[in-house]
Amino acid sequence: MENRLKEFKTLTDTLYAKNHLLGVMIFDGETIAPIASADARSKSMSVINEEIFKLLTSPSSQELINYLYEKRSSLDEITQRELTLIKRSLKLLKNMPMNEYVEYQSLLNKAQVVWSQAKKANDYEMFKPYLEKIIEYNKKIAAYYAPEKEPYDALLEMYEYGMSMADYDPFFDEMQKQIVPTLKEISNKPLPEYKFLSMPFSIEKQKILSDRIMDLMGLDRTCCSITESEHPFTTGFNKWDLRITTHYYENMFESSLYSVIHEGGHAMYEMGIDDKYQFTNIAGGASLGMHESQSRFYENIIGRSKAFMSLLHPIICDIFPEQMKGVSEETLYKALNLVHPSLIRIEADELSYSLHILIRYEIEKMLISGELNVDEAPKYWNKLYKDYLGVDVPDYRSGILQDIHWAGGSIGYFPTYALGSAYGAQMLAKMNESFDINKDITENKIQNIHKWLNKNIHVHGSMYDPKKIISMACKEEFNPQYYFDYLNNKFKDIYEI
Amino acid sequence: MENRLKEFKTLTDTLYAKNHLLGVMIFDGETIAPIASADARSKSMSVINEEIFKLLTSPSSQELINYLYEKRSSLDEITQRELTLIKRSLKLLKNMPMNEYVEYQSLLNKAQVVWSQAKKANDYEMFKPYLEKIIEYNKKIAAYYAPEKEPYDALLEMYEYGMSMADYDPFFDEMQKQIVPTLKEISNKPLPEYKFLSMPFSIEKQKILSDRIMDLMGLDRTCCSITESEHPFTTGFNKWDLRITTHYYENMFESSLYSVIHEGGHAMYEMGIDDKYQFTNIAGGASLGMHESQSRFYENIIGRSKAFMSLLHPIICDIFPEQMKGVSEETLYKALNLVHPSLIRIEADELSYSLHILIRYEIEKMLISGELNVDEAPKYWNKLYKDYLGVDVPDYRSGILQDIHWAGGSIGYFPTYALGSAYGAQMLAKMNESFDINKDITENKIQNIHKWLNKNIHVHGSMYDPKKIISMACKEEFNPQYYFDYLNNKFKDIYEI
Repeated sequence: MENRLKEFKTLTDTLYAKNHLLGVMIFDGETIAPIASADARSKSMSVINEEIFKLLTSPSSQELINYLYEKRSSLDEITQRELTLIKRSLKLLKNMPMNEYVEYQSLLNKAQVVWSQAKKANDYEMFKPYLEKIIEYNKKIAAYYAPEKEPYDALLEMYEYGMSMADYDPFFDEMQKQIVPTLKEISNKPLPEYKFLSMPFSIEKQKILSDRIMDLMGLDRTCCSITESEHPFTTGFNKWDLRITTHYYENMFESSLYSVIHEGGHAMYEMGIDDKYQFTNIAGGASLGMHESQSRFYENIIGRSKAFMSLLHPIICDIFPEQMKGVSEETLYKALNLVHPSLIRIEADELSYSLHILIRYEIEKMLISGELNVDEAPKYWNKLYKDYLGVDVPDYRSGILQDIHWAGGSIGYFPTYALGSAYGAQMLAKMNESFDINKDITENKIQNIHKWLNKNIHVHGSMYDPKKIISMACKEEFNPQYYFDYLNNKFKDIYEI
Repeated sequence: MENRLKEFKTLTDTLYAKNHLLGVMIFDGETIAPIASADARSKSMSVINEEIFKLLTSPSSQELINYLYEKRSSLDEITQRELTLIKRSLKLLKNMPMNEYVEYQSLLNKAQVVWSQAKKANDYEMFKPYLEKIIEYNKKIAAYYAPEKEPYDALLEMYEYGMSMADYDPFFDEMQKQIVPTLKEISNKPLPEYKFLSMPFSIEKQKILSDRIMDLMGLDRTCCSITESEHPFTTGFNKWDLRITTHYYENMFESSLYSVIHEGGHAMYEMGIDDKYQFTNIAGGASLGMHESQSRFYENIIGRSKAFMSLLHPIICDIFPEQMKGVSEETLYKALNLVHPSLIRIEADELSYSLHILIRYEIEKMLISGELNVDEAPKYWNKLYKDYLGVDVPDYRSGILQDIHWAGGSIGYFPTYALGSAYGAQMLAKMNESFDINKDITENKIQNIHKWLNKNIHVHGSMYDPKKIISMACKEEFNPQYYFDYLNNKFKDIYEI
């Protein structure tokens, strides 16, 4: 047994190393690499990706993993969990023929290029055949992964373990019932003062703001760097090596501000995972939804709270005295919480954000079940935007072609964004039972919030499934009602409804 | 044969991919990675380094390479050269036992940490045992690589193919005879005006200067990015993916300026290599010396020439009008060519630079032959600095502990720096036979220089050995007299001797 465990350690160390190098390669590609480097990078990465595929699916690895999995009750908890997670990650790989896997990857590479051209040209017909093929492939993938499940349920589980339509259907139903009416009411209200946000804020000074915000969040810079990229993201390879990125716009300083807070939330999660899980597949957040719960907790629940303005307002005034002349805490709070139902998901405010996800959920579900085909999809997309957000979609570019996700093969991914927000609201309610978080924020005791999240969420990494972590942290099952209440209370108060 | 060539292609593609990922990892570590990331990075990299070692030295790779090498006369020129180069890179690896290789790598890792501490503490005794072990290891390495050669000759060849003490001895002898007296004469002359260089030049504006300089050099930014690091360097993975780095000092703007030109010269070389060699081991400069010839050609021969001031002066005046008030082209030229014999190699001026190398060459040679031991080395170091540069070495930190090279196991590397400068001066002489390079620079026809270097040096990559490339480009053997003449003419003119 000792020797077999050593073999397993060698296997997981090798996988860690290869994924580590691939991760740095992707990060580099999104940040500093020159544009023309893409082809060779993709070629080199596919050599290593193929090695990983072969290593994981080789008969000897399979035999080893199965051997240990059968004897898992005699192994320590961490190894047991590692085996469970590796078995899960193999569910798809071991059933999917290598040639289909390679073909699918190459389809996705092409699809993303075509999507980008189609979006630019506002030409849905150009992208449509790729979308159709990707949907067909996803049905196949669902069948390889979990043939006993409804295809969309299988896909949902691949992105968020334990979740299915049985969980998401009531969540999104209630969202529609409880949020859409509030949004409609607010749309009839006059807008607060917000024009000062679009004054020029020099990028050099915005960089100083990023540093101050990272300090405020307590992000240890020896373990977390910041750089720029087209779209902000976070990546990390272990708790001592996190990187967040942002994108500066001179006339939209709040964009980078909230990117830094959002990505900082992701980084806090990874940096808080227990040392003992590092370099295993347990290091890393428990799921996409759990990750999003942390980033959105910092971005919205803390970062856009009234209480947080007492910390944020003096910092912004200090760095941008000209632009902030006459802007009070209250004005800043309302401007940073401006509700404006829009066409574009990534520009959405906190209230309407999840409705963008609701629309994608409904459409994905129907595309996978066959109730909706790719020809009809744009029309249905536009109808839902009118129904839920009250906006008319003028073109494909700001409609169904706006997101890269489907072109990248991610069907079933979107719902985790909304789920993360709901997880966060439930955590907030629970946290407020132990201490008054608004009071702690205004008294600059923000570290009490870090501590709660660290102890109840971060430290576990992927040791438990997301549903289990929620019920351990909140002492009850996942309950999205907290989210709807949180949104309604906050925005009805701001808009005096 | 066709199948065997396919196997070879798979082997070289795999090696390329792994080295590509490792290279990006190193680049990332030197630039954006957070400090605490070092341990895990080094661990992941050693997994991949071990894979490369095993792959290259495996019996099946050996058999394949030997099989093809024996039949090389029936193969195309490129494959022949690839085989020659891979055979050379195996000369050491196939003879060195895996455990010694691993032990040596671990010694070097430790030695570099100790060196850094020893330098900080000005404590040679601390570093001495590591230096001693590294010297012993290098003697072993020399014997594995080329048992028939003098050990230092073997080491010299590992860094610059075709070079040995028989080449370097007369080169450095003449350098001593022809350059040391000039330096002594200049040391007695009054210094020109140079104080304006140490005024504050804002880093943001220095970044604009970097961009302008890269544009002036014609560096295609879609294939070459720039970022910051502790010490400037260039790395690249193919001609479409080069990265240069610089380091900005507010009170020493010329430091970054000449780093950008120097590293830009390295990048020009790599970007100019023929497409048909890309992704083989022929892509990449022909040797360290050849690479240095290109970086120093751009940095010194062009970048510090009187003619270049007519392009540089207006750019600097445009970006820094305050600091340049009253500074003429002539004043700028003399300030940027200030001769001040110093203790530190990396801060040396163009005239005295190679004397720093001469000193290291003499000491390395004696350390490897056993004529000098590590106890006596610092005293001898100080003596040579007094004899050649006329300076007193006050401490180890600015004496024998100043460079990381020996701690990194690089013995035999330094001479390539001086060699590169000499190669460059010979190219200059040859180029001036075809066109007047000063005239072309002042007329902003700098692309004629790029073209000459591209056609005669860059395009070949490593298709030929450095000595062959020099003789093809210059229609004569390597002749360092051009270098001594170039230096004496330039600096005697500036200092009116």
